[in-house]
Amino acid sequence: MNNFTYCTPTRYVFGRNAEAETGRLAKEYLGDPKKVLVVSGGSSAKKSGLLDRVMKALHSAGIDTEEMEGIKPNPTDDRVYEGIALCRERGVDAVIGVGGGSVIDTAKAIALGVLYEGDFWDFYAGKLAPEKALPIGVVLTIPAAGSEGSGNSVITKLDGLHKISLRSDFALRPKFAVMNPELTYTLPAYQTACGIADMIAHIMERYFTPTKNVEVTDGISEGLLRSIIAVAPRVFANPRDYDARANIMWAGTMAHNGICGCGRTEDWVSHFMEHEISAVYGVAHGAGLAVVFPAWMTYMTEVAPERPARFAREVMGVPATFDDKSDALAGIGRLKAFYHSIGLPVTLGELGVENPDFDLLVKKLHEDKGEIIGGYHKLDAEATEKIYKLML
Amino acid sequence: MNNFTYCTPTRYVFGRNAEAETGRLAKEYLGDPKKVLVVSGGSSAKKSGLLDRVMKALHSAGIDTEEMEGIKPNPTDDRVYEGIALCRERGVDAVIGVGGGSVIDTAKAIALGVLYEGDFWDFYAGKLAPEKALPIGVVLTIPAAGSEGSGNSVITKLDGLHKISLRSDFALRPKFAVMNPELTYTLPAYQTACGIADMIAHIMERYFTPTKNVEVTDGISEGLLRSIIAVAPRVFANPRDYDARANIMWAGTMAHNGICGCGRTEDWVSHFMEHEISAVYGVAHGAGLAVVFPAWMTYMTEVAPERPARFAREVMGVPATFDDKSDALAGIGRLKAFYHSIGLPVTLGELGVENPDFDLLVKKLHEDKGEIIGGYHKLDAEATEKIYKLML
Repeated sequence: MNNFTYCTPTRYVFGRNAEAETGRLAKEYLGDPKKVLVVSGGSSAKKSGLLDRVMKALHSAGIDTEEMEGIKPNPTDDRVYEGIALCRERGVDAVIGVGGGSVIDTAKAIALGVLYEGDFWDFYAGKLAPEKALPIGVVLTIPAAGSEGSGNSVITKLDGLHKISLRSDFALRPKFAVMNPELTYTLPAYQTACGIADMIAHIMERYFTPTKNVEVTDGISEGLLRSIIAVAPRVFANPRDYDARANIMWAGTMAHNGICGCGRTEDWVSHFMEHEISAVYGVAHGAGLAVVFPAWMTYMTEVAPERPARFAREVMGVPATFDDKSDALAGIGRLKAFYHSIGLPVTLGELGVENPDFDLLVKKLHEDKGEIIGGYHKLDAEATEKIYKLML
Repeated sequence: MNNFTYCTPTRYVFGRNAEAETGRLAKEYLGDPKKVLVVSGGSSAKKSGLLDRVMKALHSAGIDTEEMEGIKPNPTDDRVYEGIALCRERGVDAVIGVGGGSVIDTAKAIALGVLYEGDFWDFYAGKLAPEKALPIGVVLTIPAAGSEGSGNSVITKLDGLHKISLRSDFALRPKFAVMNPELTYTLPAYQTACGIADMIAHIMERYFTPTKNVEVTDGISEGLLRSIIAVAPRVFANPRDYDARANIMWAGTMAHNGICGCGRTEDWVSHFMEHEISAVYGVAHGAGLAVVFPAWMTYMTEVAPERPARFAREVMGVPATFDDKSDALAGIGRLKAFYHSIGLPVTLGELGVENPDFDLLVKKLHEDKGEIIGGYHKLDAEATEKIYKLML
């Protein structure tokens, strides 16, 4: 078990009608702000009345608001610059994201950029580490990205289509996250499925580790993975099943708040590889992961089958033989079947990417992330090209 | 899944030589204190040089110290009053506990009492809820009580031998917890075993719930339980096995920081029943739990076998039949065998309690906790008497 620091100070307020607390929470935990920028996505938060309820709660607590709507999936830097300017112009001293990962990541980037003299992209380019930001709050509507409980933010730079994940230990962690499963009832099936693939991937990036003897973290990770896979079908059978939606929502948070990585080295290559596909082809992140991970695992079965085999046995319920490769392949097969069962693609073709430009993907990948990448197993451009091709 | 709020803001600093960070952590997270009261237990922290290292780290960070040593297991209120007076006299503005649950709980009680005009026991008697306390830090030496990550504190009032657990949501949560597994190498086998029984019980009090459909929390709980039971034998085989000690230490924290209870109603009757045994007979808390829990589960097998059966199958690996009672009893048998295998008692006789006064235990139990108790299943005095008798 490696040395580690673990701190997840976000206050999660979970349950029916939790958004009614937003005003009180903003006052108590966002530093008694005078004016909050409320960032939101497409039209559903408005149509459902959620945005109105949030505004009402904030105003009732004596807090002024500014609004920024229409953040798209795979959020881009132009909106961040816009938000930073707006905050400075209007004296905003806290930021609340009402939505899913894209909205929250945008809110985080804005909160970070407002207190920085230079270009906020400097942090994403790795020039310096985030230290301070305006206080951030969240009202979650899409469980997936786990951004409500993480210190991360993923933004795409339009110029050059670089999709970068900024990882901060604590600076960008939301002070509170309001989580009402009822807000997810209207999430379309495909988006629900993408979210499930994303949260599974978040656990797997930590599960595929070179670190030995991290049984406790393994136990938590495997328990989480099993429960997500067990509950998923119920959400599609009945989108208004409160408990099913609640479990998926909470799993999304637990999958990414760090608990599944305590004491061990993580991987993240699958996410890096998916980011390139999303950046170039504009596909949904979760759908991309459903294609990438099985291919990455198939490559790993050849060179480092131990963890794929354990995953197969402990998570996918493959009866153990004494052959790691055999078990691993069976597990990958079950994972693909699961993804198919919830409507996700498992090949680039099914993802809608015809004639993928492997050279471009590999080139951008190693430009963005370095010549040799990977935690579980080191990969160079020759290896990542093989993995991309396994996605056909 | 019930509505819930989850917040565990403690900063865990885990690993080899982590105690060297104590000065920096105290400065940054205990409000830049001028003077810290360092509370410690028996002689081992001193003999090992740990106490010196902690003092040195604090002094290097420019922080003065006062000391209070010799806190005993099942800590009592007299030392708390002593600590409160000392803090007020010497201008102490933060408290650090160096030890296990008893030391940390004492530190918490002192931190709470210093800022309260009246008698600190008012909180434990349930007259009012804790709101503010001096900032608290921890250097953990005994994994078990999980007090480093919880908002709880268990103190015994000498007058009347009332052992009460004060539960606070956030007021008593330590700001940081330094956790170095090497500090636990010299923990005697019996104390190690008691700690393991305590952390298992902490999970089980949340696992035995009347709330349905909390799969994610179940998954985490079962994964944790399985990993503790899997790792335990290695700690006894080699007390200096770093990874084994590390996993047990981290499991102790995860078992009690709230994550295993998210979204569900908890039980805690077994702990209430054990507290009475400890208060009257002075036995070790973990050993008492190894006796109490199997008896409580045996009673539950008759009246509410569903969760004991699931525990048996998911945690103890009992092959599932279609008979909950049968599976449950097999699981209890395996749990008892596990406790025996790590040197713990499973009957009052083995615990060293001859001729237990059941009337006294039942009377005190319901005086302290109410006529009807229990989350998983409601129990009156007639039922709790039966359970106590099952411990023979």
